[in-house]
Amino acid sequence: MKQDALRSLLEEVAGGRKSVDSAVHALNKDNFADLGFAKVDLSRKRRNGYPEVIYGEGKTAQQIIGIIDAMREQTVNILCTRLSPEKFAAIQKEEPDAVYYQQARCAIVNRAVVPKTESYIAIVTAGTSDIPVAEEAAVTAEAYGNRIARVYDVGVAGIHRLFAKIDVIRRAKVVIVIAGMEGALASVVGGLIDKPLIAVPTRIGYGAHLHGITALLAMLNSCASGVTVVNIDNGFGAAYSASMINHL
Amino acid sequence: MKQDALRSLLEEVAGGRKSVDSAVHALNKDNFADLGFAKVDLSRKRRNGYPEVIYGEGKTAQQIIGIIDAMREQTVNILCTRLSPEKFAAIQKEEPDAVYYQQARCAIVNRAVVPKTESYIAIVTAGTSDIPVAEEAAVTAEAYGNRIARVYDVGVAGIHRLFAKIDVIRRAKVVIVIAGMEGALASVVGGLIDKPLIAVPTRIGYGAHLHGITALLAMLNSCASGVTVVNIDNGFGAAYSASMINHL
Amino acid sequence: MKQDALRSLLEEVAGGRKSVDSAVHALNKDNFADLGFAKVDLSRKRRNGYPEVIYGEGKTAQQIIGIIDAMREQTVNILCTRLSPEKFAAIQKEEPDAVYYQQARCAIVNRAVVPKTESYIAIVTAGTSDIPVAEEAAVTAEAYGNRIARVYDVGVAGIHRLFAKIDVIRRAKVVIVIAGMEGALASVVGGLIDKPLIAVPTRIGYGAHLHGITALLAMLNSCASGVTVVNIDNGFGAAYSASMINHL
Amino acid sequence: MKQDALRSLLEEVAGGRKSVDSAVHALNKDNFADLGFAKVDLSRKRRNGYPEVIYGEGKTAQQIIGIIDAMREQTVNILCTRLSPEKFAAIQKEEPDAVYYQQARCAIVNRAVVPKTESYIAIVTAGTSDIPVAEEAAVTAEAYGNRIARVYDVGVAGIHRLFAKIDVIRRAKVVIVIAGMEGALASVVGGLIDKPLIAVPTRIGYGAHLHGITALLAMLNSCASGVTVVNIDNGFGAAYSASMINHL
Amino acid sequence: MKQDALRSLLEEVAGGRKSVDSAVHALNKDNFADLGFAKVDLSRKRRNGYPEVIYGEGKTAQQIIGIIDAMREQTVNILCTRLSPEKFAAIQKEEPDAVYYQQARCAIVNRAVVPKTESYIAIVTAGTSDIPVAEEAAVTAEAYGNRIARVYDVGVAGIHRLFAKIDVIRRAKVVIVIAGMEGALASVVGGLIDKPLIAVPTRIGYGAHLHGITALLAMLNSCASGVTVVNIDNGFGAAYSASMINHL
Amino acid sequence: MKQDALRSLLEEVAGGRKSVDSAVHALNKDNFADLGFAKVDLSRKRRNGYPEVIYGEGKTAQQIIGIIDAMREQTVNILCTRLSPEKFAAIQKEEPDAVYYQQARCAIVNRAVVPKTESYIAIVTAGTSDIPVAEEAAVTAEAYGNRIARVYDVGVAGIHRLFAKIDVIRRAKVVIVIAGMEGALASVVGGLIDKPLIAVPTRIGYGAHLHGITALLAMLNSCASGVTVVNIDNGFGAAYSASMINHL
Amino acid sequence: MKQDALRSLLEEVAGGRKSVDSAVHALNKDNFADLGFAKVDLSRKRRNGYPEVIYGEGKTAQQIIGIIDAMREQTVNILCTRLSPEKFAAIQKEEPDAVYYQQARCAIVNRAVVPKTESYIAIVTAGTSDIPVAEEAAVTAEAYGNRIARVYDVGVAGIHRLFAKIDVIRRAKVVIVIAGMEGALASVVGGLIDKPLIAVPTRIGYGAHLHGITALLAMLNSCASGVTVVNIDNGFGAAYSASMINHL
Amino acid sequence: MKQDALRSLLEEVAGGRKSVDSAVHALNKDNFADLGFAKVDLSRKRRNGYPEVIYGEGKTAQQIIGIIDAMREQTVNILCTRLSPEKFAAIQKEEPDAVYYQQARCAIVNRAVVPKTESYIAIVTAGTSDIPVAEEAAVTAEAYGNRIARVYDVGVAGIHRLFAKIDVIRRAKVVIVIAGMEGALASVVGGLIDKPLIAVPTRIGYGAHLHGITALLAMLNSCASGVTVVNIDNGFGAAYSASMINHL
Repeated sequence: MKQDALRSLLEEVAGGRKSVDSAVHALNKDNFADLGFAKVDLSRKRRNGYPEVIYGEGKTAQQIIGIIDAMREQTVNILCTRLSPEKFAAIQKEEPDAVYYQQARCAIVNRAVVPKTESYIAIVTAGTSDIPVAEEAAVTAEAYGNRIARVYDVGVAGIHRLFAKIDVIRRAKVVIVIAGMEGALASVVGGLIDKPLIAVPTRIGYGAHLHGITALLAMLNSCASGVTVVNIDNGFGAAYSASMINHL
Repeated sequence: MKQDALRSLLEEVAGGRKSVDSAVHALNKDNFADLGFAKVDLSRKRRNGYPEVIYGEGKTAQQIIGIIDAMREQTVNILCTRLSPEKFAAIQKEEPDAVYYQQARCAIVNRAVVPKTESYIAIVTAGTSDIPVAEEAAVTAEAYGNRIARVYDVGVAGIHRLFAKIDVIRRAKVVIVIAGMEGALASVVGGLIDKPLIAVPTRIGYGAHLHGITALLAMLNSCASGVTVVNIDNGFGAAYSASMINHL
Repeated sequence: MKQDALRSLLEEVAGGRKSVDSAVHALNKDNFADLGFAKVDLSRKRRNGYPEVIYGEGKTAQQIIGIIDAMREQTVNILCTRLSPEKFAAIQKEEPDAVYYQQARCAIVNRAVVPKTESYIAIVTAGTSDIPVAEEAAVTAEAYGNRIARVYDVGVAGIHRLFAKIDVIRRAKVVIVIAGMEGALASVVGGLIDKPLIAVPTRIGYGAHLHGITALLAMLNSCASGVTVVNIDNGFGAAYSASMINHL
Repeated sequence: MKQDALRSLLEEVAGGRKSVDSAVHALNKDNFADLGFAKVDLSRKRRNGYPEVIYGEGKTAQQIIGIIDAMREQTVNILCTRLSPEKFAAIQKEEPDAVYYQQARCAIVNRAVVPKTESYIAIVTAGTSDIPVAEEAAVTAEAYGNRIARVYDVGVAGIHRLFAKIDVIRRAKVVIVIAGMEGALASVVGGLIDKPLIAVPTRIGYGAHLHGITALLAMLNSCASGVTVVNIDNGFGAAYSASMINHL
Repeated sequence: MKQDALRSLLEEVAGGRKSVDSAVHALNKDNFADLGFAKVDLSRKRRNGYPEVIYGEGKTAQQIIGIIDAMREQTVNILCTRLSPEKFAAIQKEEPDAVYYQQARCAIVNRAVVPKTESYIAIVTAGTSDIPVAEEAAVTAEAYGNRIARVYDVGVAGIHRLFAKIDVIRRAKVVIVIAGMEGALASVVGGLIDKPLIAVPTRIGYGAHLHGITALLAMLNSCASGVTVVNIDNGFGAAYSASMINHL
Repeated sequence: MKQDALRSLLEEVAGGRKSVDSAVHALNKDNFADLGFAKVDLSRKRRNGYPEVIYGEGKTAQQIIGIIDAMREQTVNILCTRLSPEKFAAIQKEEPDAVYYQQARCAIVNRAVVPKTESYIAIVTAGTSDIPVAEEAAVTAEAYGNRIARVYDVGVAGIHRLFAKIDVIRRAKVVIVIAGMEGALASVVGGLIDKPLIAVPTRIGYGAHLHGITALLAMLNSCASGVTVVNIDNGFGAAYSASMINHL
Repeated sequence: MKQDALRSLLEEVAGGRKSVDSAVHALNKDNFADLGFAKVDLSRKRRNGYPEVIYGEGKTAQQIIGIIDAMREQTVNILCTRLSPEKFAAIQKEEPDAVYYQQARCAIVNRAVVPKTESYIAIVTAGTSDIPVAEEAAVTAEAYGNRIARVYDVGVAGIHRLFAKIDVIRRAKVVIVIAGMEGALASVVGGLIDKPLIAVPTRIGYGAHLHGITALLAMLNSCASGVTVVNIDNGFGAAYSASMINHL
Repeated sequence: MKQDALRSLLEEVAGGRKSVDSAVHALNKDNFADLGFAKVDLSRKRRNGYPEVIYGEGKTAQQIIGIIDAMREQTVNILCTRLSPEKFAAIQKEEPDAVYYQQARCAIVNRAVVPKTESYIAIVTAGTSDIPVAEEAAVTAEAYGNRIARVYDVGVAGIHRLFAKIDVIRRAKVVIVIAGMEGALASVVGGLIDKPLIAVPTRIGYGAHLHGITALLAMLNSCASGVTVVNIDNGFGAAYSASMINHL
C-alpha cells in the first residue's frame, strides 16, 4: 500500500469516517481463496494486470476444477496450460464450456470475447516442429486480447524464406522468435528489427542439444542486441511478456 | 526491401526515371565501413533503431579508435562497453571528448544531449555488489534518452526495504531487476507489478553459484509471469531492450 | 565406546565381575540382523535417536518384508519411504497392520501412538505440485512424534498469501520450506523468521529447471542466513533433521 | 504484522488513543538506513534474531565503513566476513576497535562480551586444509554467544582418529562437519550421532573435485539421515544455523 | 545475387531488354512452397548442391506427406531421416514408391538412379551397436550418388581388426568414423590416413558416457589432426559433408 | 610382434625353413572371425589373458548367437553381460546349454569348470539395492576362475556392520567396493586395508545423485590412497581387473 | 603394410632377392627420433600427408628446440602453434631463421616456399575479437601451400555485411567459419553455400558463454547441413582439415 | 580388531595375564600424533602397508615441518607431494636431508634405501606435456621400492611409436597410462596387454577438454577391459595402487 494512501486511510479511521472493519479489509486487500491444497490468488489481475493462470502439469483434474471454480466468478478466459487431453476430458465434464487447443495443449474456460489490440505480436518459428510451442504462445496472446501474426518455418538454413516474410515481422510491435537446434534465428531476426524480441528456445534437437539447453545458451549469447529470453518451451511466458509490451 | 518498393524501383529504372547507379545503391542500402579488422555497421540505426555499440573486451585501443572514427560522422553518443580504465586512457588521447563511467566501465564519445522520455525505467538491485552491472544499464539507458530511477540494495533477505520502494518500481514503464546469489528478487518483484520485467543475473556469489549460472537458471524458472532474462552481468543488453520498450 | 567405560569394563573383567562373553557382547553392542541381502541396523535408535528407515526404491517387496520382520520386535512405527502402491499391496498381505499414505508414497508398519511434542514443525510449500514431497515430510515428522502445521501453496508470485500465514510459520520451532521452480520462497521465508529453516528443492519445473537442480542451487545460494538444504524431493530427510531439532 | 495486533492498533487510532503518526510508524516498523549504495537492514535482529552481517567480498572498504557506521548504534559484535587483510587495514583506520581473524578472514567491530551458551557446537574438519572454513564458522559462532569445540583433521582415511574424538562430538548439541575431497566424513559422523548435523563442503581437492561441487553433491546424497548442507566454503552459514539451533 | 549480375540485370531493364516482371522474379529467385506449417525450400539444390532433406522426428506423417508433395516435381531421391516404421507405414499409403531402410530409419521417395562417383567414402564403426548410425550415413551417401565401403566393428580393443582393413580405409577419398564409448577409433584412424576424417560420436555406452557426450568430447579433443566432428548419432550430417568432399 | 621374433622368422624364410604362407600367417596371427556386422576377436585370450566378452545391450539376439557361434570352438565360459531375460530366452533356443543369472543379467554359454584361485576377491556393497551390480561382478569373477567373498549392505550409516566384517575384507587379495548415494564406503574401506581396492559407483540415488555421477566423482576424489575407479554400474569391469590382479 | 606387399616382400626374402636387414627395415618403416622426453614422428608426412606439428603449450623452449632439430633434416616449414612471445624469443636464439606470427601466436622454422593451390580456402569471422583464431588458421593454411581469402567481421547482427562478401565465400573450395557468442554465422553461411564448411567456435563471450561451450554446442546443432566442427579456438585443426580438402 | 583376538585378549585380562593398561592400549592401538591443526596417522603403515603421505597443497611450510617431525621417528622416505619450490626451500632449512624432485613437484625426507621389486611398473605417457604427472608417479613408485620403466610420448597419433615399445610395456607387472587430450592411449594399450592398467587423465588440452574432464570420461568409458581410473593428474594415486599390485 502506498504511503500516502496509508496515511489517508488512517486519518479516515481516526476521524471516524471509516470503520475499523473496512480498514482491516483494505489493509488486507490482496486476497485469495484458500482451498487447502491451493491458495488461489484473486488479486493478481489488480496487481499484475492479468489473472492467475493454471499450470496443469503436476495437478490432478480435481485440483484444477477446484481452482477454476474459485476463479470463475471474477475471471473470464481462465487459461490452463500444459494440459493433457486426458485431464481435459475429465475437466470438461465439470466445465462444459471449456475449449481445448490440441497443438497448444491449453484449455480456456469461462471464455469471453475480449477486445483486440490494434498493434500485433509476430510469432515466428524456425521449424515445423516448433509449432506446438508457438501455438501455446498464440493461445495465450489471444486470450489476453492481442492480435497476432504467425510466421512459421523460416529458419536460417533457407534464409530467403525469412526475408520473404520480414515485412510482417518488422511491422509487429513485439516479436516472439521460437527455435530449437542452434537457435540462430533469434540473432538473425534481432539484427533486422527495431522492436523488442523475446526468444523461446525449444527442446527440438538431439544429442548435444541437451534437451534445449543449447538453444537456450545460444539465445542468451545472441550477438544481436534487444533479445531477451525465457525458459525452454515456455511459449506461455513469452506471450505473457509480449502481451504486457503490446498493451503499453 | 519490400516487394512493392522493389517493383516501383524497377519501373523507375525501366522508365529511365532512375539511373542504374542509384538503383544499385538503393538495392545495397544497408552499408558499412570496411576497416579490414572490422566492418562497422552504418545502417544499424535505420534498421534497429539504435547505432552499433562497441563491445570493448577483446579489442585493442587502436581498433576501438578506428571504429569510433568510422562512426563519428553519423552517430552521437557512441557507446563503448566493457572498457578497462587503461584502454580508456589510450582512447582519450585520440578522442578528447570521451567521458568514462568508472563503475559502469563504459565510455561515451561524441556526446550529445538527447531528449529524455516522460516514462522511466526502474533499475533495481538486490545488493550493493550488483551496482556495477546496474550502472552499465544506467549509462546505456541514459545514452539512449531514457529517464531512469535507481533502486539499489533491496534484496529479499530484508524484504521491507523492497516494500518501502515498491511505488517507484510500480510506476515505471519497464523494470530491470539485477541480482546475484539465488536471484529471488526477480520473482518477488515480478509478482508485484504489471509491467514487463527484464532480469539480469550477476556473477555475485561463490561456490555453487557457478559464476552466475545459479542466478541465471533461477530467473529463467521464475514462478512469476512476465519475466524475461538476459546473459549474466549483461546490464547493457537489459537496458537496450528496456529502452526499446520504454520508447514504444 | 567411551574411554572411561572401556577402562571400567576391562577392570570388571580383570576383577572377575564380568564374564568374557558379556564383555565381548558389550564391545560388540552395535548389532544388526544379517539377512544376507541386508544387514538390518538394530542399534540405530540407540546411536542416532531413531530406528533405521526402509528406503523402498530398488528393493523388492520380499526384501522389504524381510527387513520389517527383522525390525518388528524392537521397533514401532517402522517407516518405509518411496514405496509404490504395487509394492505396498504385496507387503500388506504379509503385514496386515501396515498403513499406506498415498500422496506421500510411504507406509508405516507396526504402528503405535507416540507422544507428540508441544512445539511444532511448519511445513510450507510454494505450490500445489510440491505437496507430495511435503506429505512425505509430514508422515515422517508425525511418525517421530512431532506436531506439525501445513502451509501449502504460498509461493512468492502471490506473496500476500505468505504474509497471511506468516504468523503460523513464525511460531514454529523449525520450518521446512519446499519449492520447485526457482525456489525463491526459501529466501523470502528465511528473511522473515528467527528459527532454523530447512529447504527442500523439488523436481517441479521443466526445461532449464534440470529436474530440480535449479531449485537446489538457488537454495544453496540463498541470500537469507540460516537456511540449510537437503537433496531434491527429500521430504523425509528434511523432516528427520527437523524432528531432531524440534525434540531438543 | 499479526492480524490481532493490526485490529488493536486500528481501534486505538479510531479511539484517538494513538496518533496517526505513531500508527504510520508502527505499520512501517521494519526499518533500514538508506545509504544509496546500501539499505542497511536495522530490524533484522528483531526479525531474525541476529543483526545483519556484512559480506565483505565485492564491497569497497569505504562502503563497508559506511555500513558499519549505520549499524554501530544498535548493534554490537558487527561481523564482517570474506574480508581481505588489505581491506581490513583500510577499515581499521576508521574503526580502531576492529579485530581481525586471519585464518577466518573475518573482522568483528564494536566488540562486546556476550553470554555463552551452556551447550556447545562441535566444529569438525576432515583435514588441515579445511581449517580456514572452520575458523570462519568458529568466529561466527562465538560472536553469537556459543561455546564451541574444535575437532580438526579426523578424516576417514584414518578413521581411528575420529573414534578417539567421537565423545566430544556426540556431546555437542549440534555438529558442523567440514570436508573437501569426497566429503565422506559427514556421512560417517552422521551415522554415529543423534544430533542435527550441518555439512559444509569445501573447495579442497583438484581435478574431478570441480572446485567443491563433488563434496557438495556427496553431502547432499549422504546415506546417513539428519544431514543438511550449506554452500561450498560457507562456514558462516553453517555457524549461523547452528547457533539458531544451539540457542533453542 | 552477385553485384555484377545485379548491374547487368538492371541495365537490361533500363534498356527495355527485360520486363519488370521477369526482373522481379529473378531478384526473388530463392523460392519456396508455403504450406503454412512449413515453407519448403525449393532453391536449396541450386544454393547448396543438394535438395532439402526431411527430418522426420517431431513431424506428423501428414506433414511429411505434404512436404514430399511440394518437392516431388523438382526433386528425385527425396530423403526422409529419423522416421519410425509406424510413420513410414502411413506415408507409404500416399507415396507407394517410397522405400524404407530399417536399420537406418530412413526412407527415400521418388527414387531414381543417380550416377555414382569413382572415388568412395569409407564408413567405419568401432562396434556392432554403432551400425544404425552407420547405415543412416550409408543411405544418405548413396542417395547422393557416392560409392561407399563399409568397415564395421574394428574398435581399438582389438586393433588388429583395424589393421587388417586399413588399406580399404586409406584408399577412400574421405573417411567417416563412427564410435561410442570413448571414441578412440577416430584418433587412431586419423593418425594413419592422409584424407579428411569426419567423426560421429554415438550414444552407445552407459553411466559416465552421458548419452554420447563423452565420445563427442573425446573426438573434439583428438590428438590426431584432420578430424572434424558432427553431433551425436548424426550419420546423415557426416555423409552430407563427406558427399560434398567426395564430389569435389 | 617382438623385434627378435621378427628377425628370426625372416631368417627362417630366407633360409627356406619356413614357407611364405606360414610366415604370412604368423605375421597376421592376431586373427578374428568376420561376420560383417561384427569382427569377433579370436586372439584376445592370447593377447589379454581373457577371451572377448559379449556386451549384450544394443545387439540383437541373432547377432549375439552369431558371435557365440564364432567363439564356441575356442572358448569356454563365453560371458554375455547386460542381457535382458527376453533376449536370453531367444538365445537359449539356439544355445540350450546357456545359463542365465537373473540378478546379474548375465549369461554364460559353453560352460566349463575352471580351477579356482586360492586367494579371493571380496565384493562389498553399501546397500541392498547395489546387489545387481555386485552380482554382475560375482558372475564375471567366477567365470574367470576366482574365489569370491560377498559382503553386502555394510554402508557407513551403520558402520559397525562394516567393522563386523572387516576381517573377511582384509584377508582378500583385492577388494571391490560397490556403492551408490555418496559412495563413502570406498574411502572408509580404503583407509582400513592394505590391498588394491576397485570402486564401482552405482546409479542408486535420486535428485542430485545425477544417475551415479555423484558417487563416481566422490570415489575419484577419495581421501584414501589405493582406490581406483570404473564406470557407473560397471561390475563386469571391476571384476575383470580384480581377476587380473588376483591371478598375479 | 598391405597384404599383397607383405607377400611380395616375403617372397623376395625367400628368393634371396632381399636381405633380412632390409626386410626388417621395410617392416619397421614407420620410424621416429627418440629424444626421451619426446618421440618425434618422422613418418607422419608419408602417413598423413603433412609432417608433425609442434604444439607449443606445456613444452619448454628447450624441448621445442630439441624437436625442431630432430625434424629439420627432413621437413621444411616446421610449424609451432600456441607459442608465447617469450618462448619464441628463447627459441629464436637457437633457430635464427624462425619467423613469429604475433596475432596467430605461431612460429615457422626452416621456412621454404611451397607452391600454392589454384583453389582457395575462405576464412570467415563473425567479429573482430575472433581474428587471433583466424590468423592461426591462416598461418597454418599458408604453410601447407593453400591460397586463402580473409573475410573478417561479418557476423549476423549486421547480416548485409555477409551478403556483400558472399561471392568470395561461395567461390572458395572449402570455408572455415570462426565465431564466438552464439556462433550463428556458421548456420547462416552453411545455408548459402555448396561447399564443405568447417566451424570453429571461439571463447569470445562471457557469462553463459561458458568459455566457448555455447558456440561449440550451437555449431554442433546447426540447422544447416554440411557443417563439421572442431574444438574451441582450434584454428590450426580447421586449417589442417581444410588444407586436406583443398588439395584433393 | 578381529573377534578371535578380542576374545583372547579379554581372557588374558580375566586371567590376570594382561594388565588393564596394556589392554586399553591394545584396544586403542590405531594411534596418531595430535598437533591440533593435524592428527598425524602413525598406524597407517600397519593398516594400509604404507605410511601417511603429506599432500602439500593448502598446508603451510610450518604445518608440513610439524607433520614431518611427528613422523620422522617411525617412517623413512616421508613423501610430500604437490609441493611448490618456494615451500620446499622453507622446509629444507629445517629438514636439510630433504630432496626435491622438480618435475614431479615432490620431496622425500628422511630418505633411505629400500629394496626394489624384481617385477616393474611401466609408466607410459601419450605426450611430452604429460611428463610432470608421470614423474609424480615415478617418484612415488620408487619411494615405495618398485622398479619402474618410463615410456614417454607414444600417443596414438603416431601409433608405430607405441608398437616399437610394446614389449617393455607387456613385460611389466602393472601398467600406468597417462594421457590428456582424448586419452585414447589407455584403450589402445589396454587392448594389447594382459596385466592391470591404471589410467591417469591429465589436464593437458584446451577448450572442450574442460581441464581434464574429457580425458577422465573417455578413460572411464574405455572399450578395453581391465582399465581402472584415478583422478585427473593424480600420478601419486596411480603409483600407490600400482605399488600395492606390484608387491603382491
